[in-house]
Amino acid sequence: MSVESIVSELAASARKAGMELAACSTAEKNEALEKIAEKLLEKASGIKEQNALDLEAARKNGLTDAMIDRLTVDGKTLSAMADGLMEVSRLEDPVGSSDATWIRPNGLAVSRVRIPLGVIGIIYESRPNVTIDAAGLCLKSGNAVILRGGTEAIHSNRALAAVISEALRETAVPEKAVQVVPVTDRNAVNLLLEREDEIDLIIPRGGEGLIRFVAENSRIPVLKHYKGVCHVYVDHPADLAMAKDICFNAKVQRPGVCNAMETLLVHKDAAVSFLPEMGKRFEAAGVEIRGCSRTREILPGAKPAEEDDWHAEYLDLIVAVRVVDRLDSALEHIARYGSQHTEAIVTKDYARAERFLKSVDSSVVLVNASTRFNDGGQLGLGAEMGISTTKLHAFGPMGLRELTTTKFVVRGDGQVRSG
Amino acid sequence: MSVESIVSELAASARKAGMELAACSTAEKNEALEKIAEKLLEKASGIKEQNALDLEAARKNGLTDAMIDRLTVDGKTLSAMADGLMEVSRLEDPVGSSDATWIRPNGLAVSRVRIPLGVIGIIYESRPNVTIDAAGLCLKSGNAVILRGGTEAIHSNRALAAVISEALRETAVPEKAVQVVPVTDRNAVNLLLEREDEIDLIIPRGGEGLIRFVAENSRIPVLKHYKGVCHVYVDHPADLAMAKDICFNAKVQRPGVCNAMETLLVHKDAAVSFLPEMGKRFEAAGVEIRGCSRTREILPGAKPAEEDDWHAEYLDLIVAVRVVDRLDSALEHIARYGSQHTEAIVTKDYARAERFLKSVDSSVVLVNASTRFNDGGQLGLGAEMGISTTKLHAFGPMGLRELTTTKFVVRGDGQVRSG
Repeated sequence: MSVESIVSELAASARKAGMELAACSTAEKNEALEKIAEKLLEKASGIKEQNALDLEAARKNGLTDAMIDRLTVDGKTLSAMADGLMEVSRLEDPVGSSDATWIRPNGLAVSRVRIPLGVIGIIYESRPNVTIDAAGLCLKSGNAVILRGGTEAIHSNRALAAVISEALRETAVPEKAVQVVPVTDRNAVNLLLEREDEIDLIIPRGGEGLIRFVAENSRIPVLKHYKGVCHVYVDHPADLAMAKDICFNAKVQRPGVCNAMETLLVHKDAAVSFLPEMGKRFEAAGVEIRGCSRTREILPGAKPAEEDDWHAEYLDLIVAVRVVDRLDSALEHIARYGSQHTEAIVTKDYARAERFLKSVDSSVVLVNASTRFNDGGQLGLGAEMGISTTKLHAFGPMGLRELTTTKFVVRGDGQVRSG
Repeated sequence: MSVESIVSELAASARKAGMELAACSTAEKNEALEKIAEKLLEKASGIKEQNALDLEAARKNGLTDAMIDRLTVDGKTLSAMADGLMEVSRLEDPVGSSDATWIRPNGLAVSRVRIPLGVIGIIYESRPNVTIDAAGLCLKSGNAVILRGGTEAIHSNRALAAVISEALRETAVPEKAVQVVPVTDRNAVNLLLEREDEIDLIIPRGGEGLIRFVAENSRIPVLKHYKGVCHVYVDHPADLAMAKDICFNAKVQRPGVCNAMETLLVHKDAAVSFLPEMGKRFEAAGVEIRGCSRTREILPGAKPAEEDDWHAEYLDLIVAVRVVDRLDSALEHIARYGSQHTEAIVTKDYARAERFLKSVDSSVVLVNASTRFNDGGQLGLGAEMGISTTKLHAFGPMGLRELTTTKFVVRGDGQVRSG
């Protein structure tokens, strides 16, 4: 079968399955999630066999150890996948809930009711766990999903898809609610991005190159997750012990993720007492400091920061440090170099805390807490599909709610419009 | 100045103005709206002079009377524009409000707070009142706006823009918060659609051709308002007197608008008692009926409906009528031919009413009320920017709330992430 026919059939059957899935009850959807979790453990050896084929090819193609590590599906990965599905089954179902009902003067009762989007396309890179995580979130939010993983994971993804299908056949959820593009033909992505009548939303998950490619080539709306150049601003007066703990956590706890701090801004009156100890703590953890000239007066061992450093998402044990004259200078720096992802202030001053929260145009803005809290689980939304850095539809962590929309439900008793 | 430089300057100054406008208080924004309303009346003669130039050109170019009527700005139009601005000034400001605040187990207080989108581009056809209506809604919701009207209204739109600028110069709202593209060069639209770094949202207002062109050529997210093929389903048992009033209102009260009924579906057991009287009432109002074969057995005077009739948005005194066996047949018809705009059921049956509300995948779904209520004002949202028929970000009438997004505000006292 040609790739055109494959994509066309996938899209049409996803649309139909989406309509059936939208009518499934929360209990039916939860049962399906639990059944998939169960089958994943039951069929572990078959999945690992298929994963071994991907790993063999990866080694032949000279993939790095880090990449092979991400690609590996073992007993631990499968347990984590199954646990994730069980966690999603316990999350509140947004579908059918209503934020508000109001009565119009003519007696009409109007509610905004949450409904699934319909069909979601996920385009992602190597990690096979995305197949299960994304399928779980889409299914629970009542959306059919088409999954397009990387070529390097095709055997693993096909095996996971087979397990999901087998599980769904034993439940009320339509089998075609979760489908994996079964071919590696690169043209399949372009073909998917054209199916605007059957697919309601595209979510790319992966590097910036993948996201830009999808955004530029899609006729379907895309939720984008661009880079995180996250800032912590240490104000004066601030609790400097707290500031040190927050900055250390934001930089060091997991430097390779999008909500890690990349640039530290310090008020000039805090710098002299704050930077030497902070510098020592960073040094002990192997963090390289790249500082502005005022930083280097206090920390002579720091490398000089270039203009590129203020733009950098290091994703590594490196931090850019700048001393600023006042809150306004920090806000200007963030507006100029930030990526609207996550920004935090550490301060004792009420008015400046509130001003920072109001002025900073980022998806998550914090006072006296680590940037690492920009995460669906940490903010109490449950598992997430990524963090949107563009404002339309969703801005920040995308949980189940962000995979739905609302319609207006109107209950009347014969109202007609006059005038 | 080249059109490239004009668009580039407009976009850059809109981005800057948007940031300043986002910090304006509700009182400052309301004062600006009131000042514009005042100036519109004060400068009426100058605006009418410029409008006369557009009307003269329109007559020369042989525009229809209907088009010239839409283009005309007279004392009444200006009063309506001013009243509209005053109405928007009285609407609740969504910016800064929060749906919910919750406390995490570690003590973090998390709120989802409404913020403006930033910069909105509006691309529209002839009516100059859109210039004022759209400017008012964007300004109140804290968004800078770039307005691109039709060539035929360029003198009127420039005059309105001059009045707005003059008014804003006397207020705390930045002058560049509202800008009209001052040239008619067609390339300006394409150039605007490329400014993804400065413009956050594009809203096309006009015919389907305009909307498709914008959707296909924009790199910026687009809120689309496609056609309304709206249905009323008369169930059995239903209050047939109520059904007649609702169907008459939905078809006849204003046939040229998107929320008017285009297709009437009637349960077979209601048809014999309902259709003859309904037919007479339609006939008396000059409505042409195009019926299925079962309709024509009851109304022999009706024209036969072709397949195209089920797809048609007549926007005229024409209605397609189909007799169906049961609710399911009505739901299937709507799923196949509807446009996800507005659908209503008239019924006495509780379970079928609820089933219709749940199953119909349209932006507004009603029980025992006219489709004409799909309107921001009628549903209690205040003035609207159009009705979105796609699901992402907004589905249904777009009021002030739909011109905003949310960010997460997190208040802590030193929390760091563990694990």
